[in-house]
Amino acid sequence: MQDGEVIASVDLGSNSFHMLVARVEAGQLQVIDRMKEMVRLAGGLDEHGYLSQAAIERGLDCLRRFGQRLSGMQRGRVRIVGTNTLRAAKNGSTFIRRAQRAIGHPIEIIGGREEARLVYLGVAHSDVPADGRRLVVDIGGGSTELIIGEGFEPVRMESAPLGCVRLTNDHFSDDKYDKSRMLKAERRAELELMSYQRAYREMGWARAVGSSGTARSLATVAEANGWGDGSLTLASLDAIRKTVLKAGSLDKLSLDGLSDDRKPVFVGGLVAMRAVFEALGIERMAISDGALREGLIYDWVERQDFDDVRDLTVGRLQRMFNVDATHAERVAATTAALWRQVEANWGATSDEASEALPLATWLDVAARVHEVGLAISHSGYHHHGAYVLEHADMPGLTRTAQAGVASLVHAHRRKFKPARFESLDEDMRPLVMRLAVILRLAVLFHRDRGEGIAPSQIELDAQGDRLGLTFATGWLDDHPLTVADLEREQAYIANCGFDLQFG
Amino acid sequence: MQDGEVIASVDLGSNSFHMLVARVEAGQLQVIDRMKEMVRLAGGLDEHGYLSQAAIERGLDCLRRFGQRLSGMQRGRVRIVGTNTLRAAKNGSTFIRRAQRAIGHPIEIIGGREEARLVYLGVAHSDVPADGRRLVVDIGGGSTELIIGEGFEPVRMESAPLGCVRLTNDHFSDDKYDKSRMLKAERRAELELMSYQRAYREMGWARAVGSSGTARSLATVAEANGWGDGSLTLASLDAIRKTVLKAGSLDKLSLDGLSDDRKPVFVGGLVAMRAVFEALGIERMAISDGALREGLIYDWVERQDFDDVRDLTVGRLQRMFNVDATHAERVAATTAALWRQVEANWGATSDEASEALPLATWLDVAARVHEVGLAISHSGYHHHGAYVLEHADMPGLTRTAQAGVASLVHAHRRKFKPARFESLDEDMRPLVMRLAVILRLAVLFHRDRGEGIAPSQIELDAQGDRLGLTFATGWLDDHPLTVADLEREQAYIANCGFDLQFG
Repeated sequence: MQDGEVIASVDLGSNSFHMLVARVEAGQLQVIDRMKEMVRLAGGLDEHGYLSQAAIERGLDCLRRFGQRLSGMQRGRVRIVGTNTLRAAKNGSTFIRRAQRAIGHPIEIIGGREEARLVYLGVAHSDVPADGRRLVVDIGGGSTELIIGEGFEPVRMESAPLGCVRLTNDHFSDDKYDKSRMLKAERRAELELMSYQRAYREMGWARAVGSSGTARSLATVAEANGWGDGSLTLASLDAIRKTVLKAGSLDKLSLDGLSDDRKPVFVGGLVAMRAVFEALGIERMAISDGALREGLIYDWVERQDFDDVRDLTVGRLQRMFNVDATHAERVAATTAALWRQVEANWGATSDEASEALPLATWLDVAARVHEVGLAISHSGYHHHGAYVLEHADMPGLTRTAQAGVASLVHAHRRKFKPARFESLDEDMRPLVMRLAVILRLAVLFHRDRGEGIAPSQIELDAQGDRLGLTFATGWLDDHPLTVADLEREQAYIANCGFDLQFG
Repeated sequence: MQDGEVIASVDLGSNSFHMLVARVEAGQLQVIDRMKEMVRLAGGLDEHGYLSQAAIERGLDCLRRFGQRLSGMQRGRVRIVGTNTLRAAKNGSTFIRRAQRAIGHPIEIIGGREEARLVYLGVAHSDVPADGRRLVVDIGGGSTELIIGEGFEPVRMESAPLGCVRLTNDHFSDDKYDKSRMLKAERRAELELMSYQRAYREMGWARAVGSSGTARSLATVAEANGWGDGSLTLASLDAIRKTVLKAGSLDKLSLDGLSDDRKPVFVGGLVAMRAVFEALGIERMAISDGALREGLIYDWVERQDFDDVRDLTVGRLQRMFNVDATHAERVAATTAALWRQVEANWGATSDEASEALPLATWLDVAARVHEVGLAISHSGYHHHGAYVLEHADMPGLTRTAQAGVASLVHAHRRKFKPARFESLDEDMRPLVMRLAVILRLAVLFHRDRGEGIAPSQIELDAQGDRLGLTFATGWLDDHPLTVADLEREQAYIANCGFDLQFG
């Protein structure tokens, strides 16, 4: 990234939307603008898991305002991510489509563990350097991320379904705060943490840090009332709890340091934080300014690390699912060699993909994990692989890239059906289908699980959806099985409108 | 198994149905009856994957005849399995229901690898003792099992979608045998084997053995025509191929040693066998009398081994998916302790299950693998676990037991929905739901991933779908989180009509 370049990140959280604009100066980041609006998206989820029209409008209004600020910025210089609520909402993708038009830049949905990784990165860069392990607690509107890390590396990450909006809605929807409601909410919150607490306590940490609005508002209130020094303790939380119970309801609640827009979800955040303190046995928690949006920016600036994270993810999947890595790397190399030959003709459309991650990377990741499904069963292993890749935690990949990789793996063998690409945005499908054709050919050339054909023996040419494969003289005559395989492939991919000729 | 006891096995193959009746004498088996009918079920699969009415009737007629022979036999002494075609047919379960009524005994569907394991067992017991590795090739109507084993242990197993009925239908549906059809069929068959051939050749074997009708008919024809000595070679297969091509069609085909009922699918079997010889480089193949039906009987007599096989399967899954085995075994122990307390009331209905495997075993397997889905992602891991267990190769478990285990794992946490049990036969659902309740309680008692509650502290009582849990005095007061957990559980299982009281 060059000096003077301006980049921005936007975090579409379950409670608030945040925007951060920063300039790169001598390899360092200088924040030049911040915006924040409490959109409370999670509060607009109905009982069937749909975002209400009102919540959608609140979100779009906010994004139009953000979009105005970002209007001068180059495409590709703004990274926007959605988290918990947008992952969960059944009409999330409808919202995303409208939101992309409102803000004028592409939006990615990220998974819980990727969110945890980015939060940790943001905190680690903002916090004082810690000796030993650092525990980061990020209570959002719909989920709570718990990360133990060392230096800039997360070591253990979990995402629990606890959040200030969610707990407020589930237990205090009538805005009454009495002891029985409070106890019930606290036990529910502790239950959600019960299965991690032993492992976290055993791992231990030298410093606990809270990020995001819930932690900050609690610390601010504690300090304003003389119950804290800017950090949080169980005693300060208990003092706040006592005051909340004494008030008994939202309209009677008045606390120094508590802003009006935080107030409606304050009690849910209090419950979540107290549960975390109790479950993990935290004594004192510092507050960090860094969070997801900072993590996004640092992740970007250190893109080298981003590649590393993705490589770690691919390596973990290969090991976990016992993938024949030698074969996978051979297929990946052939995939890359074939892609290079058609990139000029096919890559031109890759702009449509509106993705941070280059498409060649999708293809590379898919080639390296295309056999993960074999761990489940040989029969139909492309289905199993797609299932695993759709649902796995894949830090270093956005949800869009992950869905793309899953589709590629699903389509890499047997029948080639449009249905394999249905989970993707419509405008991306034609391109991903082309990537899939490349992967299929590479797998075909390694059918005997050997070295495959030397790239010098094959020439691949693409014009639209017409593909021509030219082999070195005599090669096909010596390989009648490959001819049979290519004939079958012709028929398979014709099903999606591809015309493959070879000779 | 006691001396003098009579047991039977039935193999509902894609081409033929076989029945074997044997008596146990001094720990050995004495075959007392065999029946065989060529039902050609695979031939009755239409292009949409449904069994035709005619094929269903052929199958039922045959089973009524078998049923007559088996009518005197005790329930639980007859083991009936369906393979490839019944696995694949979309109306397979409808057929199974009618078939069970026709034959009067329960039918299990087994997976491809379980089929391969049983075939190997049948051949290993019937074949001469081999020094070194043995390759077993079992070409059926719809699939071909390739197994390399040592002694009685299979070491490598694959199931390829090649079969005498399938290849005949796909390439010779007009009953014409010319060179171009033959070449095309041969290449298709070799393509299906291409990805295994390297690994099999590298592993190697000292003795190759063919089992089932295709191998036997080819060897008989070769011997009758002076092209072989009762075993098969590529030369003998080539001689048969030449004659088939010379005849040019089914009605002109006449070969000494070829029976009329084998004739219609003979060419498909020839193609499959030649492809296997070519792909694996086999020089000579002996013919074995043992096959799936013998394997079923030996598997039964050596039930100790059957348990071992299931334990190996569970262990493999635990390792493959990185399961916390300590936790899993603790949950399994609690599950067993709880089940013992209600078995007298609930087990009475286990007769309905009509399964060879005791239901306590389903529960035990489910407890030991209930966290396999975590390897994919923590979020919704009960869904992922169910997916893995539905699709994994699980030797030692029938498909019914496997489906039961998958349902139990699917239902072990979060919402308790009837939908979790939909893949099971209707009459089994109530019982499996009860097993699931036991598993849920065991998981709940280990929520903190610790030792759990000592069985002496809990008393469980069941009357119909009413459950009562009694804790040692004072225990619940000391564990308010468990109380909250049990309250949530009350609500969850009430959704399926269970009434849980505790105190």
